[in-house]
Amino acid sequence: MPDRVRIALDAMGGDHGALVILPGADLSLTRHPNTEFLLFGDRAVVEPLLDGLPRLKAKSTFVHTDVSIRMDDKPSQALRYGRWKSSMWLAIDAVKKGDADVAVSAGNTGALMAMARFNLKMMEGIERPAIAALWPTLKGESVVLDVGASIGADEAHLVNLAAMGSAMARVLFDIERPTVGLLNIGVEEVKGLEQVREAGRLLREGQFPHFDYQGFVEGDDIGKGVVDVVVTEGFAGNIALKTAEGTARQFGQYLRWAMGRTWMSRLGYLLARAAFQTLREKMDPRKSNGGVFLGLNGVVIKSHGGTDGEGFAAAIDMGYDMVRYELLGKIGQSMARDRLATATAKADEVAQQASGAVS
Amino acid sequence: MPDRVRIALDAMGGDHGALVILPGADLSLTRHPNTEFLLFGDRAVVEPLLDGLPRLKAKSTFVHTDVSIRMDDKPSQALRYGRWKSSMWLAIDAVKKGDADVAVSAGNTGALMAMARFNLKMMEGIERPAIAALWPTLKGESVVLDVGASIGADEAHLVNLAAMGSAMARVLFDIERPTVGLLNIGVEEVKGLEQVREAGRLLREGQFPHFDYQGFVEGDDIGKGVVDVVVTEGFAGNIALKTAEGTARQFGQYLRWAMGRTWMSRLGYLLARAAFQTLREKMDPRKSNGGVFLGLNGVVIKSHGGTDGEGFAAAIDMGYDMVRYELLGKIGQSMARDRLATATAKADEVAQQASGAVS
Repeated sequence: MPDRVRIALDAMGGDHGALVILPGADLSLTRHPNTEFLLFGDRAVVEPLLDGLPRLKAKSTFVHTDVSIRMDDKPSQALRYGRWKSSMWLAIDAVKKGDADVAVSAGNTGALMAMARFNLKMMEGIERPAIAALWPTLKGESVVLDVGASIGADEAHLVNLAAMGSAMARVLFDIERPTVGLLNIGVEEVKGLEQVREAGRLLREGQFPHFDYQGFVEGDDIGKGVVDVVVTEGFAGNIALKTAEGTARQFGQYLRWAMGRTWMSRLGYLLARAAFQTLREKMDPRKSNGGVFLGLNGVVIKSHGGTDGEGFAAAIDMGYDMVRYELLGKIGQSMARDRLATATAKADEVAQQASGAVS
Repeated sequence: MPDRVRIALDAMGGDHGALVILPGADLSLTRHPNTEFLLFGDRAVVEPLLDGLPRLKAKSTFVHTDVSIRMDDKPSQALRYGRWKSSMWLAIDAVKKGDADVAVSAGNTGALMAMARFNLKMMEGIERPAIAALWPTLKGESVVLDVGASIGADEAHLVNLAAMGSAMARVLFDIERPTVGLLNIGVEEVKGLEQVREAGRLLREGQFPHFDYQGFVEGDDIGKGVVDVVVTEGFAGNIALKTAEGTARQFGQYLRWAMGRTWMSRLGYLLARAAFQTLREKMDPRKSNGGVFLGLNGVVIKSHGGTDGEGFAAAIDMGYDMVRYELLGKIGQSMARDRLATATAKADEVAQQASGAVS
């Protein structure tokens, strides 16, 4: 376990930029005093804010850049004007150069992914990156991936997602062999997309020492915490994640309306205030803010663009945990062993077919 | 508006069969006394239950059949042993023959869809059926479709879904020109599946007098009630629906835990009991039970298989509304006019290209 964790921040990313990012970093620092920050951004914006946060300032190195990535640019545009010099690029580049252990940005997701791929490159054996989210469940938390890095997934990618997601679950939840489910629209074998069915077969028949494949799960199984890792293609995964966030907010709003309606309910609310506070924290989407980019040679965390300081601090905390528990090394190990397992299984299959042919 | 509504029930469908279906029908009858039921099922099961529900019995015609469809059979299997004679087939067939205005079943979704397509056939101009759900939102309710009738959707199917869904919204919400959004993973034009982008272009550029296309929406916009109709391909739509149901249950569980923790919170709960009751009703997935099969020459409603009497009554109520407000005729009108509009737009395009070519 490293004795300090060095975090590179794109101080200009997100809807509110440094106004949210620096207070978020300051908050995370109170929880993890062995953090050091590398801040990239515009001097005119960052320095005055940093002067107001002396604790953060003492643990930070600031690097000025004029260029920051706009939230609504296409990835190709962002790469054109932002490569080599934007705050987003420089934060990722600090990871590449070994100056930081993890980069965190609340900026444009497409641009962040494009720059991370371009600069850090994919891990061996992985063709496409993924974004993993931590999903609060009735049993604790689950890892859900992919929640939007790429659209569509063949069976090989879904199997890779299972391996990467279970490495992350092992790191975060301290479980030897996390359970994995494939998101589908019905638990019967007959249903679902061709690729999902085929991935189900590979996972069922293969030997995966790092995780325990449990079969298909449906949308309502995620919140029950039926498995530690939920594997899905990025389009459906993103829609599931945002739908759950929306439903949680909707429920919160109903609760506020209901509690404010009569003097009896208002009084009841006052008496049960501590309970409501617990509930609010449980359902607060900010607490599980932060998507982890997986499959790259380096750890990059994407925070929601519209989050506040509390939410950004949660994204930094997530980056901190990933470094502290050595996510990257563990994914590499899993991938190597699972590749070996798949290769062995295939060799067995070929050998069996061959012996069947001659018998 | 018809002066009576004739509803055909597959009395054997669902996890609990007639034990839930008959009490559900009895409950729905108290709300809509001008309903008449046609019940299909096994005499040995249905008749004793019906004897205990004299009000329902007085308004019902019972038809015996030995055959009922199992919950986990493949559609092809179900068709093989259940065509012409199962309770599910006979309920659909009553709609086909004009003996009933709508069929309701809590049975196997795949089998129900296969039998409905086989017997009722698709409406002119529609190649694939859809299942539409009513989704409770902060503003009221929205129609979301497709929630699982078919997997994958090209742009033409997505445009058809917009037309069918808006006809349903017009019927249910009494809005002249419902707003429509396409579910996507980001509101920027650059994101999302090719077919979703292309459907977005068709909807933006076309003339659709029956609805008002508003652009892309994300998962968290559904619960806000941003649009009256949310259009999506069936895989993602099913996952979104089930994820929302799961999150609502999760929130309910958190709330129960929180309220039971201390004597203060328990007292608060007692005082605010009426408010909690309102909340429970708002979030109760049973209240919005019932998926409407769209695109067929007849109305078929699918209830959740695991629902109780209250939930099944909600599915019957939905069927009742569809008949009362003449859903089928309105979809037909929309489709015809929208087809005309699309054809005219295409003709204009061709004419313009032709005039461009000669100028």
